[in-house]
Amino acid sequence: MLLHLSTWAEVGQFLERSRAIVVPIGSNEQHGPTGLLGTDWLCPQIIAYEAEKTADILVAPTFNIGMAQHHLGFPGTISLRPSTFIAAIGDWTRSLVAHGFEKILFLNGHGGNVASIEAAFSEIYAEASFAKRRAGFALKLCNWWDLDGVGELANQQFPTGHGIHATPSEIAITQWAFPDAIKPADYTPQIAPSGPIRDALDFRARYPDGRMGSDPGQASPEKGGELVKLAAQSLVLQLDAFSRESVPN
Amino acid sequence: MLLHLSTWAEVGQFLERSRAIVVPIGSNEQHGPTGLLGTDWLCPQIIAYEAEKTADILVAPTFNIGMAQHHLGFPGTISLRPSTFIAAIGDWTRSLVAHGFEKILFLNGHGGNVASIEAAFSEIYAEASFAKRRAGFALKLCNWWDLDGVGELANQQFPTGHGIHATPSEIAITQWAFPDAIKPADYTPQIAPSGPIRDALDFRARYPDGRMGSDPGQASPEKGGELVKLAAQSLVLQLDAFSRESVPN
Amino acid sequence: MLLHLSTWAEVGQFLERSRAIVVPIGSNEQHGPTGLLGTDWLCPQIIAYEAEKTADILVAPTFNIGMAQHHLGFPGTISLRPSTFIAAIGDWTRSLVAHGFEKILFLNGHGGNVASIEAAFSEIYAEASFAKRRAGFALKLCNWWDLDGVGELANQQFPTGHGIHATPSEIAITQWAFPDAIKPADYTPQIAPSGPIRDALDFRARYPDGRMGSDPGQASPEKGGELVKLAAQSLVLQLDAFSRESVPN
Amino acid sequence: MLLHLSTWAEVGQFLERSRAIVVPIGSNEQHGPTGLLGTDWLCPQIIAYEAEKTADILVAPTFNIGMAQHHLGFPGTISLRPSTFIAAIGDWTRSLVAHGFEKILFLNGHGGNVASIEAAFSEIYAEASFAKRRAGFALKLCNWWDLDGVGELANQQFPTGHGIHATPSEIAITQWAFPDAIKPADYTPQIAPSGPIRDALDFRARYPDGRMGSDPGQASPEKGGELVKLAAQSLVLQLDAFSRESVPN
Amino acid sequence: MLLHLSTWAEVGQFLERSRAIVVPIGSNEQHGPTGLLGTDWLCPQIIAYEAEKTADILVAPTFNIGMAQHHLGFPGTISLRPSTFIAAIGDWTRSLVAHGFEKILFLNGHGGNVASIEAAFSEIYAEASFAKRRAGFALKLCNWWDLDGVGELANQQFPTGHGIHATPSEIAITQWAFPDAIKPADYTPQIAPSGPIRDALDFRARYPDGRMGSDPGQASPEKGGELVKLAAQSLVLQLDAFSRESVPN
Amino acid sequence: MLLHLSTWAEVGQFLERSRAIVVPIGSNEQHGPTGLLGTDWLCPQIIAYEAEKTADILVAPTFNIGMAQHHLGFPGTISLRPSTFIAAIGDWTRSLVAHGFEKILFLNGHGGNVASIEAAFSEIYAEASFAKRRAGFALKLCNWWDLDGVGELANQQFPTGHGIHATPSEIAITQWAFPDAIKPADYTPQIAPSGPIRDALDFRARYPDGRMGSDPGQASPEKGGELVKLAAQSLVLQLDAFSRESVPN
Repeated sequence: MLLHLSTWAEVGQFLERSRAIVVPIGSNEQHGPTGLLGTDWLCPQIIAYEAEKTADILVAPTFNIGMAQHHLGFPGTISLRPSTFIAAIGDWTRSLVAHGFEKILFLNGHGGNVASIEAAFSEIYAEASFAKRRAGFALKLCNWWDLDGVGELANQQFPTGHGIHATPSEIAITQWAFPDAIKPADYTPQIAPSGPIRDALDFRARYPDGRMGSDPGQASPEKGGELVKLAAQSLVLQLDAFSRESVPN
Repeated sequence: MLLHLSTWAEVGQFLERSRAIVVPIGSNEQHGPTGLLGTDWLCPQIIAYEAEKTADILVAPTFNIGMAQHHLGFPGTISLRPSTFIAAIGDWTRSLVAHGFEKILFLNGHGGNVASIEAAFSEIYAEASFAKRRAGFALKLCNWWDLDGVGELANQQFPTGHGIHATPSEIAITQWAFPDAIKPADYTPQIAPSGPIRDALDFRARYPDGRMGSDPGQASPEKGGELVKLAAQSLVLQLDAFSRESVPN
Repeated sequence: MLLHLSTWAEVGQFLERSRAIVVPIGSNEQHGPTGLLGTDWLCPQIIAYEAEKTADILVAPTFNIGMAQHHLGFPGTISLRPSTFIAAIGDWTRSLVAHGFEKILFLNGHGGNVASIEAAFSEIYAEASFAKRRAGFALKLCNWWDLDGVGELANQQFPTGHGIHATPSEIAITQWAFPDAIKPADYTPQIAPSGPIRDALDFRARYPDGRMGSDPGQASPEKGGELVKLAAQSLVLQLDAFSRESVPN
Repeated sequence: MLLHLSTWAEVGQFLERSRAIVVPIGSNEQHGPTGLLGTDWLCPQIIAYEAEKTADILVAPTFNIGMAQHHLGFPGTISLRPSTFIAAIGDWTRSLVAHGFEKILFLNGHGGNVASIEAAFSEIYAEASFAKRRAGFALKLCNWWDLDGVGELANQQFPTGHGIHATPSEIAITQWAFPDAIKPADYTPQIAPSGPIRDALDFRARYPDGRMGSDPGQASPEKGGELVKLAAQSLVLQLDAFSRESVPN
Repeated sequence: MLLHLSTWAEVGQFLERSRAIVVPIGSNEQHGPTGLLGTDWLCPQIIAYEAEKTADILVAPTFNIGMAQHHLGFPGTISLRPSTFIAAIGDWTRSLVAHGFEKILFLNGHGGNVASIEAAFSEIYAEASFAKRRAGFALKLCNWWDLDGVGELANQQFPTGHGIHATPSEIAITQWAFPDAIKPADYTPQIAPSGPIRDALDFRARYPDGRMGSDPGQASPEKGGELVKLAAQSLVLQLDAFSRESVPN
Repeated sequence: MLLHLSTWAEVGQFLERSRAIVVPIGSNEQHGPTGLLGTDWLCPQIIAYEAEKTADILVAPTFNIGMAQHHLGFPGTISLRPSTFIAAIGDWTRSLVAHGFEKILFLNGHGGNVASIEAAFSEIYAEASFAKRRAGFALKLCNWWDLDGVGELANQQFPTGHGIHATPSEIAITQWAFPDAIKPADYTPQIAPSGPIRDALDFRARYPDGRMGSDPGQASPEKGGELVKLAAQSLVLQLDAFSRESVPN
């Protein structure tokens, strides 16, 4: 069930059978010479929508702009500062909690979001903690590549040149979902360099075409489809376990 | 050209021929007994994507969560506080300006966003104004129902019962785009009441099914399609005029 | 009853007979070659003080600095950023609500304030909305030129050249109240140009003497007095209706 | 010269002969059984306006709401939180500095404002200090009771029972300026108690009628007039010295 | 009892016999040609640790970075902006209050902190004041040089050249505690100049070696030891009185 | 060289030979039945001070309060919210950068700090990235247990029951440094449970004595000394490599 294609009454009925919701969250940022700017929010959206076809889960709208300050040297990147990102995640969460959601799983598509999302969770929990009251809800961050079995499959598909930005696995997923948007390229070097992440101009100087450690040339729609299917199955299981998790008194 | 399905290099090339971009912006909030929760961000997205098919314009990802605090009494609504919304619009804008965009048109789908978006514009301009330097870019807010001819068409289609929330025109647009998500309903009363907008529980008490002044039962996919076609044409013209507008020295 | 010339005990007694209060709110900003910098906060103050002479209403101190970033290119303008303005309106409101005021009418004198004031209202209501509790108070924004009959009178007085900034109607009101501060001028052109409002230097380049679309040369103290008398009467009626308005359960 | 009764061009001309400005700043808060709620912003305004009659100085609009959280237990008090107050003082200052003012003297009427005003000054200076550039302007806080000779006169007038809140000196000043608003009272006890200042309900429990250590019954319009005349003279001298003060390179 | 060398259970037991705690608070900033950068946080820490040896008091970790923007022209100074400082003091306080502490004494070592600490107290109290509830705790700011008898002793020790920054009394205290870190110097002039405090570069231009009005050459470890002993005794008495202070209902 | 025991001139001289500095950073929070509340800021301080004895490095004052909202259910814990923590790290960094430091290594002692510290780094870098200028400095986060060889040594020392909070390795380090503060205990169970980290009351319900997965009973001062010596050596090497790292143009 996609929240944005539902009515408020339908969401009210869903809440009578489950208190859990998935929020796809990512980033809109450069992904090398061939990767789509939307890759990091499209991947979790694609996986969540696929999962929703097979199970009675509720998927929120996609949180599509994240923390990508280091990519601002490349046209098309849109970033929130961590402080803005934390405030926005807080408002999303407080909205959902106001309706009675108790288990909110953020399915993340961007490694650069992890620190800010976790900081946001702490910021939200702290309201209850300072007041010495129970929060009454639980937040979980789950990167799609950490879903059960997905990392293993990606390693099999791409034993070398997976890297950490503009990876063949994320490129493959968007190729599967948007075959008309596949872009051809020669990569020089075939596997991009690695190193630290700092400010945007430093990043562009170190990684001239935007890739970090990856060879996206290995991506294919087929491999992307395999990843999506497996990730969707794992997401359903993970969400189910999370929704059934009890909380100590 | 959809930014999220483009590469950074493609956006860089676009910037050589135009400095203008459209950002669909809306809200995810209850829309009465039959309206989709995503109505207010889907409408500008649908119109912008339609426009993009016929003209060389660039469409940013959709800013899908806006200022909807008064709808929080209905499940599925997600709202930013105005302060968060202003901060986020600021970061989107600063990101786009960093790449060289000089004309940013926010195509808005939610009346409740207008005040916060305009406040955000002032907040951003104020950085230049306090520093006594030129901003170097221009921001424009355009509600889709204010695009040339669109209000007139809606008045023809729905001479009574258009109202101001969960209107037949916005419902019609989503029906055209998502025919599988059309929901049947009896409306009681046929035309919903009107009145002030305050906090969420006050809103729910005044407008029990979520509509304000509207009769969405008049909506049809065909009327929606007419609205989308006209709005898309007007958007292209509006954006073209905006992009060619010169700035005084 | 002017709050600032009353004691706390007198305000306590007032609260036993009414829960409503008027807050004049405006801006301190350039008003063309002859307009007073205080015009936008003086006008609502003048009207509210006039109303207070004839009815048992309570008038708060004047909120005299508003959102005027676009006028910062002209000496004497003082502006808050929207974020500061929103925070300050919030603190004023929370103070008054703490005393038991339930109906707070902001009588506004500056069009540029509208978006930020409305955003402030949403920010304040959102505290209750996120917490799923009733706010227990209502906020109303009323521009003095929108008071019943006032716009019509201004149209009669100034059928052409009213414009939107440094208008003859607001100049007339200050002429009536401060006849010693009337400034003579030749206006070139007689009616100022119109156009968009952006950052401060853009504004000054477009509107070199500060006026927008107006011919303040038509103002006179007599016309100002007529406007004040009518606006004061309408304010009393408007406030009375607001104070008697019931709230749904 | 009162800024709010001047035009932007007049302020521009003033800036050619002086870079100094006075900002009356105070608070709107309970002042015991007879004191006016506006006492703390009226006193500096009265003194500054008196000074302006005799010297070519420029007086800004009055900053009338300050830090009065501890008085919120009494009806009519309006307070900013320190964080809001600091932000607002920052925006006032940045506005004035943008026009070329280099010496800004805040003439303060409320002891409870002192810490927040000084913190605001540091917040503003810090922008330059972190950036290792000269600020280029100087800010001065001057309580009216600390103006040369004023404390001595008040001590002569009120050798006992002056206290620190709702003092006979400030009551006398408002009696001189607003003789129609003089309120009669019996004070029990004649001299109010003293002690610490904490939250609002603690304050009201300690100081039931709002006074701290004072006997306002000794106030008279005549004594108020003497204080105003002397304070106005001292203000002109103080401002003149400040405006001529040179800054090291 | 030093909190940082205790377990949570030991703190829990302490709370059964006392609800009071001391927080040493200072600044890390230049202290002239011979003073240690840590002087202002070391002094209250030294005094509090000395007091803790003789009485059953609880000493929190030292808040070692304060408001020192004006010293940023000298290497090694670390400063918070007032807004950050206020937020941090708020979080420290809310943490301690959550555990049941009701009397929190900040033993301060830096004059430049006073305004921001008092503003922080008001910010914290305001939460209760706006909500019309009792705060339930009391905050006290105590500069170590204002402890009973300490100012008198310093005056005896240093009848001239005490000054206000890099004073011989604070230098003496650090000499007593850190004899290995005593630095020799010629002072030119022997007594440093005095004047206003503004931004960092202005400060450095006025006070080239960092001192204000002081002659630290008079400091000695012995004098420092005398100050510490007396201050520690006075602190114990002051804390005891504060902890036994009752609060009105 | 310890910054707080140095003069500004000594720091100025250090900057002529190195642009690198170490900031010990941790948290003050419960550490199980026997661990010191200061454990997480004492450990990096102990290691950095040990390193400083053997190499010409500069150690800043310890940032002793971090993000520990989940431990607020246990007396003595003091926590910053992530937003406050991020602001404070920003001010520390901007202060150090203003003096010319270009490589700032935060030696961290608390896993719960990691997300907020990384978010803080992004917040700081973003200022440069949005402005399209080079930051000119680099920030590095280094947990002491991740220093070369340290994790391996801890695994040898504590092959089972190391856990993730109140670990025997951190307890051992404080035992070595503060042998007088070693606390005896029986642990029940010997190895504490593991699980998720959420709000404070949830944490206390899951982990009743505060430990997570650890058996601190295996700690000894000797093992702590071994860890400190190795960590200090690795820190010197790590800092040296960081300080010599060149930055791309």
